[in-house]
Amino acid sequence: MKHYPHIEQAIHTALAEDISSGDVTTLAIVAEDGVMHGRFIAKAPGIIAGLEVARRAFTLLDERVILTPQVQDGDLVTPGQLIATIHGPARALLSGERTALNFLQRMSGIATLTRQFVDAVAGTKAVILDTRKTAPGLRAADKLAVQMGGGQNHRFGLFDMALIKDNHIAAAHGDLAEAVRRVKKYAPDTLIEIEVTTLAQLRTAVTLPVDRIMLDNMSLDEMRQAVNFTAGRIPLEASGNVNLDTIRAIAETGVDYISIGALTHSVKALDISLELA
Amino acid sequence: MKHYPHIEQAIHTALAEDISSGDVTTLAIVAEDGVMHGRFIAKAPGIIAGLEVARRAFTLLDERVILTPQVQDGDLVTPGQLIATIHGPARALLSGERTALNFLQRMSGIATLTRQFVDAVAGTKAVILDTRKTAPGLRAADKLAVQMGGGQNHRFGLFDMALIKDNHIAAAHGDLAEAVRRVKKYAPDTLIEIEVTTLAQLRTAVTLPVDRIMLDNMSLDEMRQAVNFTAGRIPLEASGNVNLDTIRAIAETGVDYISIGALTHSVKALDISLELA
Amino acid sequence: MKHYPHIEQAIHTALAEDISSGDVTTLAIVAEDGVMHGRFIAKAPGIIAGLEVARRAFTLLDERVILTPQVQDGDLVTPGQLIATIHGPARALLSGERTALNFLQRMSGIATLTRQFVDAVAGTKAVILDTRKTAPGLRAADKLAVQMGGGQNHRFGLFDMALIKDNHIAAAHGDLAEAVRRVKKYAPDTLIEIEVTTLAQLRTAVTLPVDRIMLDNMSLDEMRQAVNFTAGRIPLEASGNVNLDTIRAIAETGVDYISIGALTHSVKALDISLELA
Amino acid sequence: MKHYPHIEQAIHTALAEDISSGDVTTLAIVAEDGVMHGRFIAKAPGIIAGLEVARRAFTLLDERVILTPQVQDGDLVTPGQLIATIHGPARALLSGERTALNFLQRMSGIATLTRQFVDAVAGTKAVILDTRKTAPGLRAADKLAVQMGGGQNHRFGLFDMALIKDNHIAAAHGDLAEAVRRVKKYAPDTLIEIEVTTLAQLRTAVTLPVDRIMLDNMSLDEMRQAVNFTAGRIPLEASGNVNLDTIRAIAETGVDYISIGALTHSVKALDISLELA
Amino acid sequence: MKHYPHIEQAIHTALAEDISSGDVTTLAIVAEDGVMHGRFIAKAPGIIAGLEVARRAFTLLDERVILTPQVQDGDLVTPGQLIATIHGPARALLSGERTALNFLQRMSGIATLTRQFVDAVAGTKAVILDTRKTAPGLRAADKLAVQMGGGQNHRFGLFDMALIKDNHIAAAHGDLAEAVRRVKKYAPDTLIEIEVTTLAQLRTAVTLPVDRIMLDNMSLDEMRQAVNFTAGRIPLEASGNVNLDTIRAIAETGVDYISIGALTHSVKALDISLELA
Amino acid sequence: MKHYPHIEQAIHTALAEDISSGDVTTLAIVAEDGVMHGRFIAKAPGIIAGLEVARRAFTLLDERVILTPQVQDGDLVTPGQLIATIHGPARALLSGERTALNFLQRMSGIATLTRQFVDAVAGTKAVILDTRKTAPGLRAADKLAVQMGGGQNHRFGLFDMALIKDNHIAAAHGDLAEAVRRVKKYAPDTLIEIEVTTLAQLRTAVTLPVDRIMLDNMSLDEMRQAVNFTAGRIPLEASGNVNLDTIRAIAETGVDYISIGALTHSVKALDISLELA
Repeated sequence: MKHYPHIEQAIHTALAEDISSGDVTTLAIVAEDGVMHGRFIAKAPGIIAGLEVARRAFTLLDERVILTPQVQDGDLVTPGQLIATIHGPARALLSGERTALNFLQRMSGIATLTRQFVDAVAGTKAVILDTRKTAPGLRAADKLAVQMGGGQNHRFGLFDMALIKDNHIAAAHGDLAEAVRRVKKYAPDTLIEIEVTTLAQLRTAVTLPVDRIMLDNMSLDEMRQAVNFTAGRIPLEASGNVNLDTIRAIAETGVDYISIGALTHSVKALDISLELA
Repeated sequence: MKHYPHIEQAIHTALAEDISSGDVTTLAIVAEDGVMHGRFIAKAPGIIAGLEVARRAFTLLDERVILTPQVQDGDLVTPGQLIATIHGPARALLSGERTALNFLQRMSGIATLTRQFVDAVAGTKAVILDTRKTAPGLRAADKLAVQMGGGQNHRFGLFDMALIKDNHIAAAHGDLAEAVRRVKKYAPDTLIEIEVTTLAQLRTAVTLPVDRIMLDNMSLDEMRQAVNFTAGRIPLEASGNVNLDTIRAIAETGVDYISIGALTHSVKALDISLELA
Repeated sequence: MKHYPHIEQAIHTALAEDISSGDVTTLAIVAEDGVMHGRFIAKAPGIIAGLEVARRAFTLLDERVILTPQVQDGDLVTPGQLIATIHGPARALLSGERTALNFLQRMSGIATLTRQFVDAVAGTKAVILDTRKTAPGLRAADKLAVQMGGGQNHRFGLFDMALIKDNHIAAAHGDLAEAVRRVKKYAPDTLIEIEVTTLAQLRTAVTLPVDRIMLDNMSLDEMRQAVNFTAGRIPLEASGNVNLDTIRAIAETGVDYISIGALTHSVKALDISLELA
Repeated sequence: MKHYPHIEQAIHTALAEDISSGDVTTLAIVAEDGVMHGRFIAKAPGIIAGLEVARRAFTLLDERVILTPQVQDGDLVTPGQLIATIHGPARALLSGERTALNFLQRMSGIATLTRQFVDAVAGTKAVILDTRKTAPGLRAADKLAVQMGGGQNHRFGLFDMALIKDNHIAAAHGDLAEAVRRVKKYAPDTLIEIEVTTLAQLRTAVTLPVDRIMLDNMSLDEMRQAVNFTAGRIPLEASGNVNLDTIRAIAETGVDYISIGALTHSVKALDISLELA
Repeated sequence: MKHYPHIEQAIHTALAEDISSGDVTTLAIVAEDGVMHGRFIAKAPGIIAGLEVARRAFTLLDERVILTPQVQDGDLVTPGQLIATIHGPARALLSGERTALNFLQRMSGIATLTRQFVDAVAGTKAVILDTRKTAPGLRAADKLAVQMGGGQNHRFGLFDMALIKDNHIAAAHGDLAEAVRRVKKYAPDTLIEIEVTTLAQLRTAVTLPVDRIMLDNMSLDEMRQAVNFTAGRIPLEASGNVNLDTIRAIAETGVDYISIGALTHSVKALDISLELA
Repeated sequence: MKHYPHIEQAIHTALAEDISSGDVTTLAIVAEDGVMHGRFIAKAPGIIAGLEVARRAFTLLDERVILTPQVQDGDLVTPGQLIATIHGPARALLSGERTALNFLQRMSGIATLTRQFVDAVAGTKAVILDTRKTAPGLRAADKLAVQMGGGQNHRFGLFDMALIKDNHIAAAHGDLAEAVRRVKKYAPDTLIEIEVTTLAQLRTAVTLPVDRIMLDNMSLDEMRQAVNFTAGRIPLEASGNVNLDTIRAIAETGVDYISIGALTHSVKALDISLELA
């Protein structure tokens, strides 16, 4: 994962915290020249994400490990399906197994939930977005998994897009235009999104040079009015109280984006096992 | 969190990935000498965990931030309850908010689920344990949260306790005694747990100098027989297919420990908001 | 500079490479309890940038150092003008002096040149942009200095905006639309700029969902035609062969942005001295 | 560049700041198995420096990249001349291009300017030295480039040679001998240079056990007198107000060394392009 | 040593501190394509430990270095005996030599002393343990060497086992049972050792749920009484004033463990030379 | 120890390896608001070194710790003498104790042995030097301790002085002059020492522009001849087989420097206790 420096670093950190002074069980029992092979098997239906990350967890321990995917990131697997085979030095396989699975299962869990939301809005124009509610230190991996599930990434962090929220507006004395003006001056080449909570605020926001407007915790009815009023002039993002029960109706209001913190803040790991022999 | 170097490092990493080249919105809009105060409010019932971690996320940005807890780690909160107050430089509060909440909500989610399992086994002798199925890079924080929820920590990683699993046994030619002998020789002062999947294996394991035996994916009936046969000579740990529906019956078989990967691999963040003003 | 993690890290690295095993001259000669004060004086006219970075270079060595700016970042100074005063432990002042000046002079040099370009296009709508041609490891500091000089920042790196160049287009078989489509699919929420070298390419680019078009090494006449043809539908950025002699004419073609690698790849440090006593 | 740990670290840092969460354009458009080749071409005359650093920027991304130099570090190239060829995985070539060029162009710019100074003093005994006025974090790379241009390196940092300046002398109550004595006592095995600003100070310095004397900002006439008086007993270094117009006359005063901050503090990148296909 | 992340990191640090900006002698004199071979020869009798660490010090500099052990870690060597051969790029051999030897000689010195203590207690049941009195940053390497010498490792650090010492007992108001209770509550799954200095304390300690009791600085007679009283209920560890003259008598008191700070806090490097040609 | 970045880093590393996921005993038993005080007491005679390093080990854990030295680095202490007092948060004192002592005892052990060698050569002109045979990662601390013991530091690493050894001479085809020429060309501003093993080599070396000559493993008689022949033209350093029995005679041969690997490669920790209450 050298092309993803953040993820490369996260794999290093994860291996170090797990192995630390040494995998005593493996070093004690397993011969240095032992060789094993294994099979990653899906135990539940879901979307696979993170195969390269899993591979890297092993090859950082021993470059001779060979992991051969049988599906691709983004593919749907069914219980019992073979996801990948692996073979190589036994010590590396045993010591790297948990770290590899921790990444693969989390990323696949994110991709699986993302796909459910993507499917739920099928036929509408709504795009599924993630948020910054990721596991600390894993933002790059979490967001890559969202992509693999068919979602799109909202801003990576506080630095690559401005999102003017209520507290920022308050710091500009409640003046949306002034808040936008300050950002334009400070970082003119940055995408700007502004958060509104009322239709009154929306009407102001539409007149400002912003790239997107976030409708924060609005009712379905307010969202519909917002879509009508905005009439496509600026893309709208629905945010707040989004779940699989509510998302279809939200999408049908005509908003362009729906952002969902739960994609990454409450991840259910996909059940995947690594059967070694 | 200087007394927890792993967590201190994780907070550094999280702030760096979020802020990176700078929080453009805040730097643009909020004056350098602005001051804010805020209130952490529970939006759902649960167990709070991670108040010191949240505090550190802010003080690493600006030492002048004051976070004053109104509850303690491990306390149950109800929706609407005030968890902590905060005040300090506005920029630090706005830039640190998401990182602080990402830790606090994840840790509180872990503590909350842990407490549910702990309550479910009340009156039995079963102790709730976590596993190594933690978010990569967050093991120390995840495990601290389990403690705050009333659970206990299984081994931290591959280094601080030996856990002899099926693959290790296979590497010792199926000979449990030989596997244990190798570990005793290599790391004699390390706790040893051995995993068994059948009662036949259990009968061998009980004769070995191990500190705990893991009953892997056994039926309730097998677990009862294992408890009877072992008769307290070595503590037993149930593992596999544990959830809130099944745990009571598992605990009532008389096992000493029940380990639950879901405590940390599938975390539902506790809903907590930070209201700034 | 804790609010700028990249710059904080760069200051750490710079102090470590300079001091390494210890500042032998200072440790040998200067008493541990010695105190000094000093004055930063401009020796040439220019724009000051990096006062906070300079302060941090000292306070990382000793928190008791007090640096008091007499001008602000972005201010024009004249030769002989007092920029800041400093006082504190003598060892910290002597050991931190060069690192502080290396940042302050480089950043001020960047700001000064940026301001010259900004002034050269005054009255036109052209905005001055930097590039990724920064000193390795100093991108955040270099780009902050551009802001302080009145320029704007182009993308920070390869990750926060897509810039489709000739080689990317070739990888999409010369098909601009296909290249854009792939980016939209992979990273739909990312700003896209596409580079064109001919008016024919421009005519295609204008029909694509891109956020900006880069006119690469076009003649003034081609740029004028491009501006006329585009008619404001998509912002245009001039790039290539820009210097203080040519920029006015380029700006007057009506392009929206002019990016200049020389702002950061060929920095003339602003002459600033620190007079200690 | 593993034999140069400082530079190896700088390349890592530079790649991480540029690529961060991923090169979106390349990952989106360019197939994982794509292969490219390219040619580094000089666009201006100059001295090449940094070929190994450039190579390492690519091989850190993908070990399969092959960079084949056509000239050597230190060689003079003319506009249009082929400097090196490269081929390998397309993604690594595209993602590493800017980082490689940022190093190669800066280092070549330093070497080119250094060579001009070296040529300007040809026939005299004066040796061209750099200073600590390097880009923060790049000292090892900057100083390696000076060597490649034919200059020599002054001390690397504050730790590997003592340089007693006016402030240190003041801390020793103006007593040069006392200052030298303290250094000899603290770090007896370290080279010592002492800075003098007057001929009176020089006359004292010559009697002290120092390895070199720096003539700080002296006039040509003072330097001549200093050379005559010193009569070769201790090497003399001229410092201050050195440029291509003044250096010949300075060298002809008979000083042994001339140190030039501009070699590294005000670098004009050498124009080099990488043409990929 | 990727399977030992702590040691891997220590090798990186050691190479960086030694080579820093470059091995000037080698880079100056030895051609880039030079090849050498060498022989590690024991110059004193002792136990070899650290062959893999030595290998890694070279391969981190150049993957082409081949180190071929002629003995195994833990083997006794006699003066003049060949320990290993090495061949590869001359620069890597020369630049890595000192770092490799610093590890190999220190680790072999630790293993050699450990073996002397192990031999001194032969025939008793006493096990030789190390302590946390290791060289800062080298704990994993120091403890691995103890293993190779035939000793066992005490806890790695403050985190993987509780050791209740006098100050902890004082913090629990002198109440041993209360101290143990607090640890059981905080970290129930952690081994607990408690330190006692009197037989009265021992009688209490034996009644507590602890895994080992440390007899701190007791006389031989007290130790004998402690062994008799405890009667095997809980393992006993002798600590304090242990040296090669006293250890046999200590072991013969019947204690289970003897811990010896001197194994690692006062290391006599084993004399090993690397003869290159 | 911020003025010594290498040592600062080593303290960080040492605390992290010891505390890792947390000091379970202290966190379990000792209240967060507990306060303790303590006394560092010498248990053996020796030279104290490392008081600031010990202080920093505590203040990195908690800035409120106050350590008050009662002696200075370099002072001789006698058994029972009070070295320093300390007070502050109990947790920091207990968790930092071992790390602080590991540094303080090692550094004091180095200083103590150094002083013995220094005293042994009293009245001669011989200066005691250390070598690069330091504990990996602790070179800066080890060398600082040598200074505190009255010795001087040889080169810090491979980068700050050239030392031409037999293998380098072999790489220059046995031609000492050629070896020196290459270094002068590559790093003209670097001190050069050359190692000779015969008087014949010495006679050549004396004619070369080197700063010191190392007499490697010469007999006393050879050393005397070397001193006579050299007649003060170039300083001479004796190296090899130096111990407290042999050093006086070596010094009396008239050599200028005597370097002793044992100062740091075989450190006997000075016995110092920290009595907390």
